[in-house]
Amino acid sequence: MQIGTWNIEENTFLKDKVEQNGSRFLIGNGYMGYRGTLEEFGKDELVALNMAGLFDKNGDLWRESVNAPNPFCVKVSANGEVLSALTASIGEHRQTLDIQNGIHSRKTVFNASGAKVTVEAERFLSMKRENLAAIKFSVSSDTDTNVHVSTCVDTDIWNINGEHFTVLEQYSEADVNVLKLQTNENKTPICVYEYIVGAENETEVALKADEKFEFVKLCGIYWGDGCEGSLDAFKAIISEDYATLLAEHKAVWADIWANSDVRIDGDEEAQFAIRYSIYHLSSIVPRNTDKCSIPARGLSGQVYKGAAFWDTEMFMMPFFSFTDTTLCKNLAKYRINTIEGAKRKAKEFGFEGAFYAWESQESGDDACTLFNITDVFTNRPMRTHFKDKQIHISADAVYGLWEYCTVSGDYSLLFEGGLEMMYQCLLFFYSFAVYKPLKSRYEILDVVGPDEYHERVDNNAFTNKMAAYVAAAFDKALDYVKNNDPAFFAAFAEKHDLSVFDGFVDKLYIPQPNENGIIEQFDGYFRLEDISLAALKERIIIPNEYLGGGNGLATTTRILKQADVLMMLNVFRSQYSDEIKKANWAYYEPYTEHGSSLSACAYGIVAAGIGMPDWAYKYFMKTATVDLTGDTKQYLGSLYIGGTHPAANGGSWNAAVFGFGGVSYTDDALDVSPKLPAHWDKLSFKLLWKGVRLTVCATHNGTTITADKPTNGICVTVNKEKYIF
Amino acid sequence: MQIGTWNIEENTFLKDKVEQNGSRFLIGNGYMGYRGTLEEFGKDELVALNMAGLFDKNGDLWRESVNAPNPFCVKVSANGEVLSALTASIGEHRQTLDIQNGIHSRKTVFNASGAKVTVEAERFLSMKRENLAAIKFSVSSDTDTNVHVSTCVDTDIWNINGEHFTVLEQYSEADVNVLKLQTNENKTPICVYEYIVGAENETEVALKADEKFEFVKLCGIYWGDGCEGSLDAFKAIISEDYATLLAEHKAVWADIWANSDVRIDGDEEAQFAIRYSIYHLSSIVPRNTDKCSIPARGLSGQVYKGAAFWDTEMFMMPFFSFTDTTLCKNLAKYRINTIEGAKRKAKEFGFEGAFYAWESQESGDDACTLFNITDVFTNRPMRTHFKDKQIHISADAVYGLWEYCTVSGDYSLLFEGGLEMMYQCLLFFYSFAVYKPLKSRYEILDVVGPDEYHERVDNNAFTNKMAAYVAAAFDKALDYVKNNDPAFFAAFAEKHDLSVFDGFVDKLYIPQPNENGIIEQFDGYFRLEDISLAALKERIIIPNEYLGGGNGLATTTRILKQADVLMMLNVFRSQYSDEIKKANWAYYEPYTEHGSSLSACAYGIVAAGIGMPDWAYKYFMKTATVDLTGDTKQYLGSLYIGGTHPAANGGSWNAAVFGFGGVSYTDDALDVSPKLPAHWDKLSFKLLWKGVRLTVCATHNGTTITADKPTNGICVTVNKEKYIF
Repeated sequence: MQIGTWNIEENTFLKDKVEQNGSRFLIGNGYMGYRGTLEEFGKDELVALNMAGLFDKNGDLWRESVNAPNPFCVKVSANGEVLSALTASIGEHRQTLDIQNGIHSRKTVFNASGAKVTVEAERFLSMKRENLAAIKFSVSSDTDTNVHVSTCVDTDIWNINGEHFTVLEQYSEADVNVLKLQTNENKTPICVYEYIVGAENETEVALKADEKFEFVKLCGIYWGDGCEGSLDAFKAIISEDYATLLAEHKAVWADIWANSDVRIDGDEEAQFAIRYSIYHLSSIVPRNTDKCSIPARGLSGQVYKGAAFWDTEMFMMPFFSFTDTTLCKNLAKYRINTIEGAKRKAKEFGFEGAFYAWESQESGDDACTLFNITDVFTNRPMRTHFKDKQIHISADAVYGLWEYCTVSGDYSLLFEGGLEMMYQCLLFFYSFAVYKPLKSRYEILDVVGPDEYHERVDNNAFTNKMAAYVAAAFDKALDYVKNNDPAFFAAFAEKHDLSVFDGFVDKLYIPQPNENGIIEQFDGYFRLEDISLAALKERIIIPNEYLGGGNGLATTTRILKQADVLMMLNVFRSQYSDEIKKANWAYYEPYTEHGSSLSACAYGIVAAGIGMPDWAYKYFMKTATVDLTGDTKQYLGSLYIGGTHPAANGGSWNAAVFGFGGVSYTDDALDVSPKLPAHWDKLSFKLLWKGVRLTVCATHNGTTITADKPTNGICVTVNKEKYIF
Repeated sequence: MQIGTWNIEENTFLKDKVEQNGSRFLIGNGYMGYRGTLEEFGKDELVALNMAGLFDKNGDLWRESVNAPNPFCVKVSANGEVLSALTASIGEHRQTLDIQNGIHSRKTVFNASGAKVTVEAERFLSMKRENLAAIKFSVSSDTDTNVHVSTCVDTDIWNINGEHFTVLEQYSEADVNVLKLQTNENKTPICVYEYIVGAENETEVALKADEKFEFVKLCGIYWGDGCEGSLDAFKAIISEDYATLLAEHKAVWADIWANSDVRIDGDEEAQFAIRYSIYHLSSIVPRNTDKCSIPARGLSGQVYKGAAFWDTEMFMMPFFSFTDTTLCKNLAKYRINTIEGAKRKAKEFGFEGAFYAWESQESGDDACTLFNITDVFTNRPMRTHFKDKQIHISADAVYGLWEYCTVSGDYSLLFEGGLEMMYQCLLFFYSFAVYKPLKSRYEILDVVGPDEYHERVDNNAFTNKMAAYVAAAFDKALDYVKNNDPAFFAAFAEKHDLSVFDGFVDKLYIPQPNENGIIEQFDGYFRLEDISLAALKERIIIPNEYLGGGNGLATTTRILKQADVLMMLNVFRSQYSDEIKKANWAYYEPYTEHGSSLSACAYGIVAAGIGMPDWAYKYFMKTATVDLTGDTKQYLGSLYIGGTHPAANGGSWNAAVFGFGGVSYTDDALDVSPKLPAHWDKLSFKLLWKGVRLTVCATHNGTTITADKPTNGICVTVNKEKYIF
């Protein structure tokens, strides 16, 4: 694969890269995502038009996001020979993703019965009109050739857990092919419209040498309430020509880059990697709804059930809160909208308040099962505790909301369910916590922290610290509401007995550094077997055996799946000294497997802050190139687990801006203390802070900050010096 | 195997029954146990002289009880042919255990080069003189035969976890062969003396037809402090002849039976089974020390490391408390003596007070490891939570002590560390328990109950109820001390702040019957998979796979290893109505695997009480015949796990006396409401209650109770009618 300034390109067709490239060359517009497959591909090549926020359950199988029919299906044959990259002889081949403009294109020259037939295609999912999937397709040949072009909206599609829709109607109205479907579980309508300019569904072309046969196809995909009046809406779209639609789409991308680009001078590889991360985040974030969040595999398919995890709040939302207030607000609102599911879950497990879904779909009910992994030794479902014990999720949800408020300065969500949501989450933690009279403190027992290899641990430092965060944030939110809307506050205080939490946060145990400065990940971690990662791996019998769960190899050792204490030091980086960070980084790093793509960025950010630029760079690049190299595991047994890694994409931005950019902040003060790797000449990025867009430009000689408009005395500290804008 | 009135007999020699018979034909005197093997056997046939209370650790292997050198080793050859039951041709064979007198005997007629050579042996471990192992051995033949008899104290012995002693010296002094050894870990001395009358160690005999060559061998086994002056002590023993020593031994057994026999008329099988149970209990209980308890496999070998479990207090001690105050007091004192180990364990796991060893040896430190089982799928050690989570052990220890006090009326142990021990156990439970402010109650989370297939459960009914028992018993004990020794009480109250427990027991959550009368075994049990035992077993892949632990098949289902709620209903049988008992019996019985020999008796006792005599009889017989049939698993992989089942032996007595005898009691009142199986004519047994030995004789026509001496107005209720003796 070649990496250009703004694109990636595959110049050879390799069959064994089809799955990887499906994720690498993904396009998306937040409403849907389309995998980077070729037009002639089908379900076996994991083609997918993955819909955001639309879920379905088939029988007893896992509930997952819906893949809609494939609008980009085009098959070509020349002189009777099928021109598929999978089977035909290929002269030249090029697959390109333009990340500046969100355009996928391909050009393939096939050797077909003596003719060199060139197939070209360009497609995009419109950023301007979220229902639009557009493709321009052409065929040419160096000799006169009889060509057959077939295009359709393919309903025979790839699913991981069973079929999710049935076709109700299929007809043509004027020039539009109409396909009406409904989902299996909730009978949600899906409408797909197809409009072809310059061809039919089946077209025979007697192609002259060096002549080009070209057509354009515009498809509209709508579901749920969006189906109402959708044919008219689609007709309005197709009244515009392809060039106009493409220009609109590119204009939106230009705005995105204007507000979010991160410039790295002196390191082309890093420059592309950070932009590629921003491209993915921007392609998959819901742009016009607060009814869904960002799935853990983006819109690259149904892996992880299309569900949102803590990934959104803890890894991706920082990028959006500092670059696009509207999008970030939607993400924060999603958790408010799904609170009923969280309350049901709390009740189910015997607690009060809101226990958010570990795997959250549209209702907030948990898509996670109690048996989330198959034991490779027995082929039986393995009881895991992601769903019932990973309680930090409720704190993560609060974190997303409150950090949005803090960074944006927009506290309006507090009055739209936000304060209630914070209350319910605090109530959940309070009902989960236990009081130990002999120690005069609250503890949080029997949880799973970020490091999922150690289930059912007591006083996980990250979890306890996050619970304390919830209590502190709720106090601040209450203060805000009291000061800004006394009537609202009075009604709230009338509804809830707020005194119930008195003393909770003061007496909540937060694990502290020991005499060596190390914070124990959880009670008893220090007593676990001290083994190296290499030695642990030598014990592995079956390559993909799960290291956690009931009997996993890591469970009784210090080996951790991913940053846990380090994640805490990252999130609360302004509260811990460099000495503590250094000690914990050095202690935990050798034990960390990085079995999750969420792990590396925390190590990178902390390393950057404590003057370990080489390590910071290593972990930044590891994070930023996860989807670029695509070197992640694609299958677990026969189960596809590939796809994109939006949390790592968000982590790249965090590592660049919070790490090398040295950005941290408190309620009303922003601190920027850049620490560039030696070989970088310049790092510049935008920060939307309290409604003002700042541009930070850091070199080894100094840092400048400019604002896009007059401010009201925003306070920024740069390298320990205070500036008032 | 034949069962006589007072003996069992094997009339055929079967090689594949050697291990089973080793346990079945066990003899013991509390100081040591000798497996029911033949004199010519060696380590491969699991010969063992297992020492009570003597432990050793070899390297990293499990610490276990010590098998001393084999004093009964005798090998015979006739006309050059080795006469071993394992290899020679056998004419007749008889192996007998006389349970009335604790004597093992054998007679084997070998076909040796045309001659019929008869070998006879009789042996016992003296109940009168605990160091004495005595054997009378004879050889005769139907024709003139050259016989070679070889006898020694065999030091090449069977061990499960490595060698445990080294031979320091071996010499003869006068007619005594002296063997001085020391253990490996603590260098504890062991002295073994051998004195042969009528033969040498190697004896050639030109045997005349129908003449008998007979010799007697007396051995003395001493260890630790007992070695001091032991040769003189042994010399005093050997100054007596065999007949005298045997008569003394039999006299002790006669006393035991006089005080403890249970008579069942009309059911010979049941009669023998209960006596066989009493025989085992009486053979293995320490008679002259409070420094050790009864191991879970008795003195039948090193299985379960020779350690004592909750088995002693909850299953065996009732028999001793109602039949032999001295022995019972020793057992209760053992836990007081090992409290320092229990305090170390509590501290190790972050708690206060005394957390007794799950597997207790001489110091009270826990012999149980955190990895007590090997996973058959991976051959790796499996993390289990017997050691760190089966906290009911501290309540069981208190139960043993307090029930001893209650039944005997002897509270002297309270002043000898007993009150302190109860305090430390209550403190442990208090430090383990957590307070849930929103529920205004204490809960006990993250434990393992008796049903070990479900690890790390919350609010296990049995555990919580037993914790409440500890609190209540401690209150009563305090009252006793306050009333009987105010100065002692004052000093105690000075030492410990007793107000710390205020409100604990009142607010301690005890799971209550639901609307159907069912008490949930632990939080969430009702939500586990409802599967039949048969269906669960169909899921088994490897026959001996462990059903509990991290990923065991039973863990996520309602299938339980052993009585748990039923055990609670049994222990607290006077506190629950018949309706509750019936509902829970019916609910839990189908889910119970009885994977432990501790399970059946609880079902039997409860069934007897609620008018289900057929079920009661079935479970009584299941319990009472465990060691008689010997049909338990002998090996787990290559690991020997056979041996006797003293908890079941105790459970048989409990089922007979508490179940069919209908005995229950409160602090000062004894209730006897017999419910005999239809085919029993009479059930009679002794009850030592507050120092008075009562004889209960129950028939279908009524119950009589007599006392062995004038009483001070003891109150007994018989079938609801109150009698004052």
